Parts: sequence; C-alpha cells; structure tokens
Amino acid sequence: MFTGLSAFPLTPMNEQGIHEYEFTRLVERLVEARVDSIGVLGSTGNYAYLSGEERARVAKLCVEHAADVPVVVGIGALRTRDVLTHAENAQQAGASGVLLAPVSYQKLTDDEVFSLFETVCRSLSVPLCVYDNPGTTHFEFSDELHGRIAQLPQVHSIKIPPVQNDIAAAQARVARLRGLIPSDVTIGISGDPAAATGMLAGCDAWYSVIGGLYPETALALTRAAQAKDVKQACALSVALEPLWALYRDYGGSLRVAATIAELTGKVSQPCLPLPLQTLQGDARKRVAAAIDALQLS
Amino acid sequence: MFTGLSAFPLTPMNEQGIHEYEFTRLVERLVEARVDSIGVLGSTGNYAYLSGEERARVAKLCVEHAADVPVVVGIGALRTRDVLTHAENAQQAGASGVLLAPVSYQKLTDDEVFSLFETVCRSLSVPLCVYDNPGTTHFEFSDELHGRIAQLPQVHSIKIPPVQNDIAAAQARVARLRGLIPSDVTIGISGDPAAATGMLAGCDAWYSVIGGLYPETALALTRAAQAKDVKQACALSVALEPLWALYRDYGGSLRVAATIAELTGKVSQPCLPLPLQTLQGDARKRVAAAIDALQLS
Repeated sequence: MFTGLSAFPLTPMNEQGIHEYEFTRLVERLVEARVDSIGVLGSTGNYAYLSGEERARVAKLCVEHAADVPVVVGIGALRTRDVLTHAENAQQAGASGVLLAPVSYQKLTDDEVFSLFETVCRSLSVPLCVYDNPGTTHFEFSDELHGRIAQLPQVHSIKIPPVQNDIAAAQARVARLRGLIPSDVTIGISGDPAAATGMLAGCDAWYSVIGGLYPETALALTRAAQAKDVKQACALSVALEPLWALYRDYGGSLRVAATIAELTGKVSQPCLPLPLQTLQGDARKRVAAAIDALQLS
Repeated sequence: MFTGLSAFPLTPMNEQGIHEYEFTRLVERLVEARVDSIGVLGSTGNYAYLSGEERARVAKLCVEHAADVPVVVGIGALRTRDVLTHAENAQQAGASGVLLAPVSYQKLTDDEVFSLFETVCRSLSVPLCVYDNPGTTHFEFSDELHGRIAQLPQVHSIKIPPVQNDIAAAQARVARLRGLIPSDVTIGISGDPAAATGMLAGCDAWYSVIGGLYPETALALTRAAQAKDVKQACALSVALEPLWALYRDYGGSLRVAATIAELTGKVSQPCLPLPLQTLQGDARKRVAAAIDALQLS
C-alpha cells in the first residue's frame, strides 16, 4: 500500500460544509486511473481544519467510493486524545492505513513526539505512515528519531519532505535514513517538484498532490521512475515545471491545486476553509495560463 | 482593560478533562491580588488543545470567579468558522474582551489574516486584542499589517512578542508601531523576561505568564515600570533571572510554569494535554531548586 503513487485529493468545502458530491467525484477519478493508494485528509485534504465528525464522514465517503484501492486516512491533531479518536474513526470507516503528522502549537520535544506515535500505534490495527512535514507541523524530525519511531511494529512507511534536486545528494539522504529503519518500512517522497528525483534516488512511493487532480500524469511519472527510466521520469517532471514554479511562487501546492480545481470546474468556488483562500487576480490568471499550456483539463 | 498586568492562568487538565476546582483556585488568587485583567485561554491556558465546549466552559468558570476583574478570552483557531463560534461563546460567558492569534497549519498570507480579523471584528460587541506570537502561530506580522488591522474599530490592543533587552532599541520598536496605529490602541509586551524592558520602553500592558501563578510578584514589577522607576523595575526582573533562564533552556514559559504549578501543589500532575509534558528528571529538579531559591511557593 505504501509504494507507488499515493494520490491526495482535495476536500472541497465552504463555510457551510463539505461538498460531498465533488469530493466523491475526485475520488472516483483516482480509482478509474488505478492509483496505488488514496491519501485522504492529508494536508491537501485540509484535515486540520475539519471537525472530528466531518473527518469521519470524509473517510467513510472515500472508502465507499475507492473500490479496491487502499485508502490511507490522515489522523493528525494537536492533541493525542483527538488523534486517538480520529484513528478509531478511520479504522471504523474501513481505512487500510493511517497517516500521522506531529502537528504542533507549542513546539514539541523528541520525547513527546515519540510518545505520541507509541500511544497511537498501540491503539491501531492498520499500518501507519509517519508524516514528516516541517513546513506545516513546525517539528523537525532527526534521523535518529525516525529510526526510533520506525521500530514500532505498526509503522510501515515514512513520508519525507522534498529532497535536494540532485540525484546523488538525494540518494545519500535516502540511504542514510534507510540505514536506520527496518527493511519493511518504505520511504515516500512528498513535494511534487522533488518526486522524480526522490523516486529515482530510492524512494518507494510518491505522496502526491498533483496526483489527486491528474492521476494519469502522476502515474506516468511514477511508472517511469519505478522502471528506473531516468530520462523519461526527468522529462515528465521537467514538462511540469510551470506547475512547480507556481508552487514556489504561491506558498506551496495547496492553493495552486485548489485554484486549478476551481478553474477546471472540478470543485465549486470557494473550495478552501477560511481564512485560507485560493489564488485571485494575476496569480489566478497565471495558473489558468499554465494549465492551458500544459493541456490539463 | 488592556493596560497594566494581564495575568494568564494555566488551564489544568488531564486526558479525562479539565480540573475545574484547580482552575478556579488559580483565578481566585489573581482576583485576590487585584491584577488588572485575566487572560484566560491564552497560550498558557492551552486554548488550542481544547474542544469548543471545553473552551466555553473555562471562559464561563473564569468570569464567574473573576468578580469585577475584566476577563479576556482567547478565541484563536485554525478556521474562521471556529473562531466565530469561540467569539460568540466568550461573549455569552461574559468576557470583557477577546484575544485573537492567527493560528496556522498552512502558512497564511497577509490578506488572509486581515480578512480573518475583519470578519471576526464584524461579529464582536467587545474589544479585541491582536495576539502576535510567531513562535506558536508561525505567522509574522509586518508593522504595515498591524497598522491596517488596528484601524478596525473593535481592535483595542496588540500583544507583541518580546522586545530586545535594550531600552533604546525597545523604545524605537514600540515607537515605530505606535506611529502606525490609532492612539487608543494599547501595546502590551509578552515574553516575561522582556516585560520590564518592554514596559519601560512604552508598552501599556504586560501579558504575563508568571503573573498567572505569582500575581503579587508580577504586579510589583508592573507598578514599578508604570511609575517609570527604572531601577526598581529592572531589579525586580533581574531577581527573576533564574526563572528566565529556565524559559530559555526548556523551550519557553509553558512547560516551566506548568512544572512549577505541579511542584507547588497548585495543580495535579499531569496538568498538560498530551503530547505536551511537564519537565521531568534533572530539568524538574532545576525548576524545584529555582523556586526554592526565589522563595516562590
């Protein structure tokens, strides 16, 4: 489950609630494209902004529409108590796995994060992916801590932040981590612009934002990298450079993906929870031009 | 209300719930000491870790036990929808004011933060204090943005992060901000070690963590600074240097204050929401030695 392309759909919503029909359509597109897994309620799915009831509902809807594609559900929260509730709800919904980031308000210590994972793992009957995303959690994992957490038997994967855009450097980074974790724990790359380099450098999975909207495009890149076709994987990533430039210029992937989804009619506008807003004005025009040029619809 | 000493009590809790009796005792001590206001459900009160119902209950308990001392309630949340709910609940509880930090998971833009404050202010019938705490919110206010937000008629104060420990530099910093905001908007210092410098440099208020546990100690420093008694205010702050050293060495004020409260029997152990933990081992011994040496009980 924690290998190949894991596609992360948006959770379209407004201030009144979740757009369930639009959400299930996004999930159905991923199933039709045969992605390797669906990562629902990731950062792209705005898990942190939803109530417990809404999260349980989204997890259930996703599993109901995912056919035989494994569904991994984000269970992160500021408080261990709430993480445990989200984990139980995800399992009740039929999740095949869960994804846990050490979300913080007060800066967390290594021991606090280890205890969080230990406590949650004790309550789990499905595999867990450690979600390392310092840009949103403001927690920096050391490799030593990754090693400790990966010994927990429920841990089956680590979702790492972007690697350097240099295959040798990325290989060294992946190898160093690999040396500290059990052999059955996979490593997945996140940050779409780093996906080709990450997978060519030895990552087993791509935890993908763009795969949530354009699964065929992301699958082509994934399959080329899995086949060690360096030229093809790099060419497919380079072709998407106009998208990666938008991520760099507009604060990451979420607002860009959400704006694309609005522009292409996949979701209603607005689709993000306030105070978050999709791109407007010139930024929106630039996104529209990029998806036109890339013939993404 | 947004001048002098605003004391921020802990919200003692464990995984089962809030210790209401311990909480109300903390509040009663602040009332007995005659602090200028009580800041309930600040970062020290762990607002971000509590459910909406728990926050409403804590606000109500605080107002009920605060006699005639004004109560300012923290209403921050990731989502505008939830901030509006917390604001309404705070007002229903009888809050005299509210405190709002732009809490983030996805990094926020200036326009998003302005819209958050504008939307919330439209719904308020009590004054608001802007809570600028980049260490927990990961949002950096520009002075220009402070200026824009402070024009909203409901905004009556800005709680700023620690100033440099240099009165001239701090004066320049406070004067620059003062030049951009209406004259009836006060500026309050946070970060206890910077309190004396901040108030001597022109801040109108001290938003105080240690004042939540030792209001007499914090009031003595506040009154000296308000009387422009530089020598006395600085001497009182220097005397507390062993505490400030603990804040520096153990990741800020929260874990130190919570550990002190446990050690002195003001709250049961544990008092923080997991994954947060109070200090243990050698760190705890050092806190115990410091409060002994300072004769804080």
